[in-house]
Amino acid sequence: MGDLRAGTTTTAPRPRSLEERLDRLAMVALRVGVGFEHDDRLRLVGPLEAADLMRRITVQAYELGAAYVDVRYVDPHLSLARARYAREETLDGFPTEQADLAFTVAERGDASITVSGKDPDALASADPARVGRMNRAANRALRATSDLAMASHMPWTIVPFAVPAWARKVFPDASAAEAQARLWDAIFAATRVDADDPVVAWGAHATQLDALAERLSREGFEALHVRGPGTDLRVGLARGHVWEGASSVSGVDGRRFVANIPTEEVFTAPHAEHVEGTVRASRPLSYGGQVVDGFSFTFEGGTVVDYAAERGASVLRALLETDTGARRLGEMALVPHSSPIGAAGRLFYDTLFDENAASHLALGRGYPTTLRDGAARSSDERSHAGLNDSLVHVDFMIGSAEMDVVGLLADGDAVDVMRRGEWVLGGL
Amino acid sequence: MGDLRAGTTTTAPRPRSLEERLDRLAMVALRVGVGFEHDDRLRLVGPLEAADLMRRITVQAYELGAAYVDVRYVDPHLSLARARYAREETLDGFPTEQADLAFTVAERGDASITVSGKDPDALASADPARVGRMNRAANRALRATSDLAMASHMPWTIVPFAVPAWARKVFPDASAAEAQARLWDAIFAATRVDADDPVVAWGAHATQLDALAERLSREGFEALHVRGPGTDLRVGLARGHVWEGASSVSGVDGRRFVANIPTEEVFTAPHAEHVEGTVRASRPLSYGGQVVDGFSFTFEGGTVVDYAAERGASVLRALLETDTGARRLGEMALVPHSSPIGAAGRLFYDTLFDENAASHLALGRGYPTTLRDGAARSSDERSHAGLNDSLVHVDFMIGSAEMDVVGLLADGDAVDVMRRGEWVLGGL
Repeated sequence: MGDLRAGTTTTAPRPRSLEERLDRLAMVALRVGVGFEHDDRLRLVGPLEAADLMRRITVQAYELGAAYVDVRYVDPHLSLARARYAREETLDGFPTEQADLAFTVAERGDASITVSGKDPDALASADPARVGRMNRAANRALRATSDLAMASHMPWTIVPFAVPAWARKVFPDASAAEAQARLWDAIFAATRVDADDPVVAWGAHATQLDALAERLSREGFEALHVRGPGTDLRVGLARGHVWEGASSVSGVDGRRFVANIPTEEVFTAPHAEHVEGTVRASRPLSYGGQVVDGFSFTFEGGTVVDYAAERGASVLRALLETDTGARRLGEMALVPHSSPIGAAGRLFYDTLFDENAASHLALGRGYPTTLRDGAARSSDERSHAGLNDSLVHVDFMIGSAEMDVVGLLADGDAVDVMRRGEWVLGGL
Repeated sequence: MGDLRAGTTTTAPRPRSLEERLDRLAMVALRVGVGFEHDDRLRLVGPLEAADLMRRITVQAYELGAAYVDVRYVDPHLSLARARYAREETLDGFPTEQADLAFTVAERGDASITVSGKDPDALASADPARVGRMNRAANRALRATSDLAMASHMPWTIVPFAVPAWARKVFPDASAAEAQARLWDAIFAATRVDADDPVVAWGAHATQLDALAERLSREGFEALHVRGPGTDLRVGLARGHVWEGASSVSGVDGRRFVANIPTEEVFTAPHAEHVEGTVRASRPLSYGGQVVDGFSFTFEGGTVVDYAAERGASVLRALLETDTGARRLGEMALVPHSSPIGAAGRLFYDTLFDENAASHLALGRGYPTTLRDGAARSSDERSHAGLNDSLVHVDFMIGSAEMDVVGLLADGDAVDVMRRGEWVLGGL
């Protein structure tokens, strides 16, 4: 019959403009990401080029009743200038007043939103050893603050922004404008901004991931055995480990928040001393503005005893030399190959995207929240349970359509968890 | 005869590219502005849109041996968001951790460069009373830090950047690109970037202004009588006042620095209680992103007892209501109408430019350095000498080709200082 009103016909919904979608992404960051509430203070950090989104987040935060929004713009060109031109002996320095400020704000429990989006090769022209030195100094100075974040003390989240240099890297054959438009489409799909009601869509998605995490926690695996091209790795899990899904709970006021927008993963704590075998990364890694590709690690007694990389071996070396814990695992995360981001079949050269496209491991510090009552335990107790400690936490991807994961139980039983990159655990 | 080398002819020097001129402006900021030295730390603050210059300053600072460069990008859109959307009762807040950081850095004596350049109407759509409330809170929180700057504790300077919205305001009839190019030309001329050797040119210029300041200090005027269109004002000077030229001396290490790039002024301290008559501004004032125009003040006993404005009276009201000192004078500066910036015959809607195009006064706090040994005196002693105190310091322009200034001596003698906007003091 059609619509009877003159001059109208039944049509598909009008496509939303970039501006509307950015406003929706701002809303997702605030309402889903940090569970923003009236009278909250917000700390907002992101690149210069993301100013458009950061201004929208600021406006909406004030409309939601923010007490204050403090914005810090970051600029990789400044890190590059330092990495290239600063005197060698100054690279171990970090402005303590900036570290103090970050800690004050985090300890007070201010909500924290980081806008992520950068040229994966931003520091490609700098000496990896010098960049490594700068990163170590920063990680050392900001250690107390990242401890608070990793223990879910304050509500925090990371949301993406399609900066042009990143878009060019992901879509090298497209024009600059088209590359950015395509990256935005990928971002808005992955962040559920294009859903009818993004907040409702996130509620359903988080419920699903949280239920999956609970199901895995109940299994009580002693270890996971991961097999795939170039990979045959036994990852022991920490004693009393639990799996986490999308939702975290703030230690300050108990509110729920979602630390990664997007997120498709469930993750838990490996045992720092019980990892054996070899693992080959399935995707390149952009770490500190430098790309590592075609790399693998061999573990013995939980520690990397050998590594190789087709590109960026010196970046990897600087990372592994950070401290003892940088050579051990702090996170094991499972993501089905058919996840919306993985299904896009793209390399994103960005941890926030690639880690939600593929199962992954992280070198370095583990999350206290992936131990039962972990946030309440002392660091000795955490370490005794097998939780790794380090200045760094760096994810790298291992998932693919050829990855199998088997769960090993204390009684010797083995349970299929993933086959060919997809969940096969009974009851899922 | 011409040049005998084959294929060459005598030509004018190749015009410098924008990039070269920006590099030179960065050099002037560092070497002239803050007298940058090996192992200095630098605090660099400026608008997002000035990133190009700020990155060049950062690179050159590291090349000069900087220990660290800490950059803070500011964004008037964020202030506008707060002014428009934040809850009324939150406007008196200011992030104390940011104020603490600014003070720590200043007290330590880090060199400080502020890049100035903004849309003069950036906050035009906001309620002036709300903006006034935000400004008061910021001025209160940053009071201790600005005390250090006004006493020349650390080396600091301000340099301009031709942001597009500012260029459009100054050259409203030009295209966006042409307006910016013309503003850059004005900036590079005024900042002596286009001189053969900008650092040498600045040395000569500063010597000249410093000698002029010394000459005026020796006169020991009791007051200045200023007359012009709408202006008949007697400005008593503080007891023991001295005039300052271009050069300041850092309290931390005695180095010389030039706090304004450009500067064309000599300035001293009015007596807070001895100002009588009426003064009409000769140029509009952009204060906190809002423009005031066609305004005048009437003083009795040093205090504004009446004021009027053709535009922006409510901005003026918010300023005058800051505190008692905001209604009194803290600076009297003389600039000949023929100064390079004044001679350009342009309104710049920017204090750094307009104050160096025209003689001016400032409402609010006086500079301790404009009293003999002022930095060493207690605030009671400064106040007793007549130095004004306030949370604010806001320059407004009074100079024109029709302004006369007479110096009044304690014995009743009168000495012509400026006539029709030009120096006539004997010996200049």
